[in-house]
Amino acid sequence: MACLTFDPSREFDVIPLGRAAIDFNPVDINQPLEKCRTFTKYLGGSPANIAVGLARLGKKVGFIGKVSDDQFGKFIKDFFVRDGIDISHIALAKAGISLGLSFTEILSPTESSILMHRTLAADLQLDVSDINADYIKSAKILVISGTSLAESPSREAALKALELARKNGTVVAFDIDYRPYSWNNADEIAIYYSLVGRTSSLILGSREEYDVMERLMVDAPATDAQSAARWLGFGNRIVVIKHGKQGSTAFTADGNSYRVKPFPVTAAKSTGGGDGYASALLYGLLEGWDIVDTLEFASASASMLVAAPSCADAMPSAAAIEAFIKAEKAEYGEAIVRD
Amino acid sequence: MACLTFDPSREFDVIPLGRAAIDFNPVDINQPLEKCRTFTKYLGGSPANIAVGLARLGKKVGFIGKVSDDQFGKFIKDFFVRDGIDISHIALAKAGISLGLSFTEILSPTESSILMHRTLAADLQLDVSDINADYIKSAKILVISGTSLAESPSREAALKALELARKNGTVVAFDIDYRPYSWNNADEIAIYYSLVGRTSSLILGSREEYDVMERLMVDAPATDAQSAARWLGFGNRIVVIKHGKQGSTAFTADGNSYRVKPFPVTAAKSTGGGDGYASALLYGLLEGWDIVDTLEFASASASMLVAAPSCADAMPSAAAIEAFIKAEKAEYGEAIVRD
Amino acid sequence: MACLTFDPSREFDVIPLGRAAIDFNPVDINQPLEKCRTFTKYLGGSPANIAVGLARLGKKVGFIGKVSDDQFGKFIKDFFVRDGIDISHIALAKAGISLGLSFTEILSPTESSILMHRTLAADLQLDVSDINADYIKSAKILVISGTSLAESPSREAALKALELARKNGTVVAFDIDYRPYSWNNADEIAIYYSLVGRTSSLILGSREEYDVMERLMVDAPATDAQSAARWLGFGNRIVVIKHGKQGSTAFTADGNSYRVKPFPVTAAKSTGGGDGYASALLYGLLEGWDIVDTLEFASASASMLVAAPSCADAMPSAAAIEAFIKAEKAEYGEAIVRD
Amino acid sequence: MACLTFDPSREFDVIPLGRAAIDFNPVDINQPLEKCRTFTKYLGGSPANIAVGLARLGKKVGFIGKVSDDQFGKFIKDFFVRDGIDISHIALAKAGISLGLSFTEILSPTESSILMHRTLAADLQLDVSDINADYIKSAKILVISGTSLAESPSREAALKALELARKNGTVVAFDIDYRPYSWNNADEIAIYYSLVGRTSSLILGSREEYDVMERLMVDAPATDAQSAARWLGFGNRIVVIKHGKQGSTAFTADGNSYRVKPFPVTAAKSTGGGDGYASALLYGLLEGWDIVDTLEFASASASMLVAAPSCADAMPSAAAIEAFIKAEKAEYGEAIVRD
Repeated sequence: MACLTFDPSREFDVIPLGRAAIDFNPVDINQPLEKCRTFTKYLGGSPANIAVGLARLGKKVGFIGKVSDDQFGKFIKDFFVRDGIDISHIALAKAGISLGLSFTEILSPTESSILMHRTLAADLQLDVSDINADYIKSAKILVISGTSLAESPSREAALKALELARKNGTVVAFDIDYRPYSWNNADEIAIYYSLVGRTSSLILGSREEYDVMERLMVDAPATDAQSAARWLGFGNRIVVIKHGKQGSTAFTADGNSYRVKPFPVTAAKSTGGGDGYASALLYGLLEGWDIVDTLEFASASASMLVAAPSCADAMPSAAAIEAFIKAEKAEYGEAIVRD
Repeated sequence: MACLTFDPSREFDVIPLGRAAIDFNPVDINQPLEKCRTFTKYLGGSPANIAVGLARLGKKVGFIGKVSDDQFGKFIKDFFVRDGIDISHIALAKAGISLGLSFTEILSPTESSILMHRTLAADLQLDVSDINADYIKSAKILVISGTSLAESPSREAALKALELARKNGTVVAFDIDYRPYSWNNADEIAIYYSLVGRTSSLILGSREEYDVMERLMVDAPATDAQSAARWLGFGNRIVVIKHGKQGSTAFTADGNSYRVKPFPVTAAKSTGGGDGYASALLYGLLEGWDIVDTLEFASASASMLVAAPSCADAMPSAAAIEAFIKAEKAEYGEAIVRD
Repeated sequence: MACLTFDPSREFDVIPLGRAAIDFNPVDINQPLEKCRTFTKYLGGSPANIAVGLARLGKKVGFIGKVSDDQFGKFIKDFFVRDGIDISHIALAKAGISLGLSFTEILSPTESSILMHRTLAADLQLDVSDINADYIKSAKILVISGTSLAESPSREAALKALELARKNGTVVAFDIDYRPYSWNNADEIAIYYSLVGRTSSLILGSREEYDVMERLMVDAPATDAQSAARWLGFGNRIVVIKHGKQGSTAFTADGNSYRVKPFPVTAAKSTGGGDGYASALLYGLLEGWDIVDTLEFASASASMLVAAPSCADAMPSAAAIEAFIKAEKAEYGEAIVRD
Repeated sequence: MACLTFDPSREFDVIPLGRAAIDFNPVDINQPLEKCRTFTKYLGGSPANIAVGLARLGKKVGFIGKVSDDQFGKFIKDFFVRDGIDISHIALAKAGISLGLSFTEILSPTESSILMHRTLAADLQLDVSDINADYIKSAKILVISGTSLAESPSREAALKALELARKNGTVVAFDIDYRPYSWNNADEIAIYYSLVGRTSSLILGSREEYDVMERLMVDAPATDAQSAARWLGFGNRIVVIKHGKQGSTAFTADGNSYRVKPFPVTAAKSTGGGDGYASALLYGLLEGWDIVDTLEFASASASMLVAAPSCADAMPSAAAIEAFIKAEKAEYGEAIVRD
């Protein structure tokens, strides 16, 4: 029996809510950012990447967000349109508000960091008046990115969307997507993450992300089993806890848990895997696949993204993921990612 | 069987959280405020009044709030100390932050309004660092005033207190205490009221207050029974819905409801009744009284406050309320406030 | 020969620019403010008092300022209308902006202080769009109160008025009116005071006020003669430096200086004298009087105000000032205030 | 006789005050910015360019500014250090404040625009506490960039520097450097530009820049001769008014004026010329050259910059400018830039 069921009559499979931004990655890498002179522009932002990922997998995708009313906002919308993503609910920020930018510093193949330019970023200016009940009602799944909760007015916009999803039977997937630089203090993170996690149907996060979410609830960090029990207890149907290269576990409302490891690949960068994972996971769930198959598919997408030089640009089709899995299993054995 | 039970080992019976402010009431009334020349200073703010009300009823009371670091803040703290209220968790706002002030306009015995001076008011500067887990753990009941949710950082401070109360088994009473002028928009009100109402144990509000809280949840205003079912369904044990002079109804988790009307008095003003009601209601619950007796006691306190010229100053003792009930019943009959 | 000449064709004698506010003075005085329970409401704000003072002296007076769009703003405008002051250029602040309030603490006849409630006060919201060139052109004298320079957007409104006065030949009287609580830092005070003082025609200030204005210009506090030389050198025609009970000196562009002492009175309070002084001084200048007679008249008005229980309410007529001077001279001798 | 004389004992020839920023220029040009994928990073900001220009001309240069405390701030400081510019008074902004960025859109060789990312840019966070009297005293010339006046706290920092320059006999060169996007409204521009222009010694601006500066002073746009008379009348020694390709005129305090045209070059871009002009002009003045020779040198530097693909990177040495002039005159005649 499926953990989650979706209303087949809905127009959109998935509508992510949150930031769409631009990443500038240096071309002349392996040196400090101040020395890099040439940069390539990419679509960025976790919910934007998830939207592209699901569109590439053939799903009908919308988006709720806000972009700058300039060429960079147009870049986002053009990108989405090319991938068939509905942009009817991407609002334009008022004049003077810029798109959030990230500049990646790649010191070496294993050392990277990000310089954020996100002061009053357009995505965090999303406000309650931008949230449309009919649009949320038209989606099988609403993905709420945790970063949308970091500041007002985006915070309230996300909470309004959550409330409307609840009212209208839209499944809420909460992608914790923790970005420390966006937040004022640890208490706020714990408060708002747990508010959403308490009423979502699916939570996706790393062990660290569950720890920051549970900070006001526990006296000591919880185990995965304890966290899963807590959030399933609040009514979630699936709780996914990720441990990076050690793999991830999905705990389901029926009391089972399923573990999957990454496929062995040579990492080109340390980012993007999570967004590939999330989009492929939602794809499997929408397809009604077994959790085990879904997780394997998600893990494959994550591994492909980590091995690719970019994020949204590199989001694979279902056929590509299937081919990747087949090739990996041929080389490493059928059970390569399963415990 | 009692709807709510309390941990008898806790030091404080009740700790309200929220605003303590000053009301300036004109002496030369029955004319527009611009013409009034002389004003009397009173303690104001719903949670402050409730604190005083419960202290007068003999309960051990604390307070979580923030006041200006000046003579007006000192006035609040001095007032509380005289009534035996613990002020150890009333923080001082930084320099330049003023106490919230309310100036009452009394055009006639039945027409009054309030001119608010609450820009960056001290109470709304309460922040998460002011919230102490041990203090919340030391209380049987935490009263959260809805106005504390109107703005950051007080909003997050209240939500942190809510989370800590939940963790530590402190009963949360949510006094909706709706003040339109404090809020940005109707969506925010609905979002934050419902977040608290969803995890409290007791909700106190007028019909209008439930309507603003439920705005994103319903397509048309609910009936009292529907509202009660909703909030009891989220886990509340008692849901009180007030209809002004038409009386109020308490719905309890066991499926019963109890209705009480006001005692007939000559109103001196239109404010203060709710705070008298709340403090007397919490008193009855703490005493383990029947709901019916508790409601009658609450109604009596409310009526006494409405008939009095002031609020906190006029909060009655338990003996005074009992005497009032006895006298009213002698005059109007035993069942005067019961349906 | 007069130090200053005025265009007789102009409709208004004087238009002060700056704050109109409310003072609440305790009735139950000689105790800390937190203990005072009853307060009387008065018109306050130095430029507002000067406007009333000049209107009482029979001059045609306007006003440039901003008040709250509520009963307190209406109180200000009603007060001005009763005194015949033109209110056509008193703008209304947007909703949520309150009038500035001052609560006086009178610990004893000689110890007093003020508790300010001026966060985002209406007067400091005056902005450049509120400044009308024709209105400034219609005045013989524009009085700029230094406090209007403390914050944007009032700061720029005052500087725009200054520029337009300069363009249109309106005499600028700069009343330094230093209120430390309004300012961010000492450098800003020095910067903006000196910007105005450099292009005004008349400066009124205490020794302390010249010191804060000259802070970035000098290595050690200047003497009165040095200050006078500096500001006359920038083009001012009259520089008045006040020393409280020790009297004041007017330095004029022709190189002369005139000193006057206060009339001996029993002070009822320590405020208001400066506003009486300023309005009477401008009156004498407008009348074309000798500086010496003007100063004596200003000193008399100041002394009358200090002896009165209120400020704007107590602004005297010219006849009253003349009678006061006559009575004082009869008692203390003709040269009582002259050196 | 020289229009301006400088104190030879001072350590620094020139200290510009204002923004140092980063320009990102697309590599794949001649298309809308949203389509450009690759960008090259350059030092930007008019006062930063002027600093580099003067350093390349062999002058001893300092800088007063604020940069982000990250890799982009380090890029600025590293660039300056390589050019021998003193960075001891470049302050670091607090965490969360980003460097201002400009993204150039080059639609065609003649159509370009700039997308600004300057919300709370580091340079505009310069504040009065960053301004050091001894540093200003150590300079022959302080260059104030008009953009530093656009917002507080940078506005007050610039005004404090102006005041200290005046006190300490440092020559103030005001480079109007008008950037409309930085300002709130036209009145503020006129107010602050004219405040500085009134007390500087040298003003550099285009006709349009004088018009915005004089907006509150005149009823109709002034002629160059009228503007020159006005600003020389306030005490400036040289007033330079630029008319783009039509050339520029320097009006001097002795009543003369000197006109110079650009050298004929093929423009590679429309920016940078002004900064080359300013640095070469100050160089000529510091060298004690005739105005005519100075202007020719400035015009040559401007033309070289316009013909170069970058700004700061392309700032020429004195020898290069001289060689350029010689070559141009050989080709076009000795009087090519003179009327």
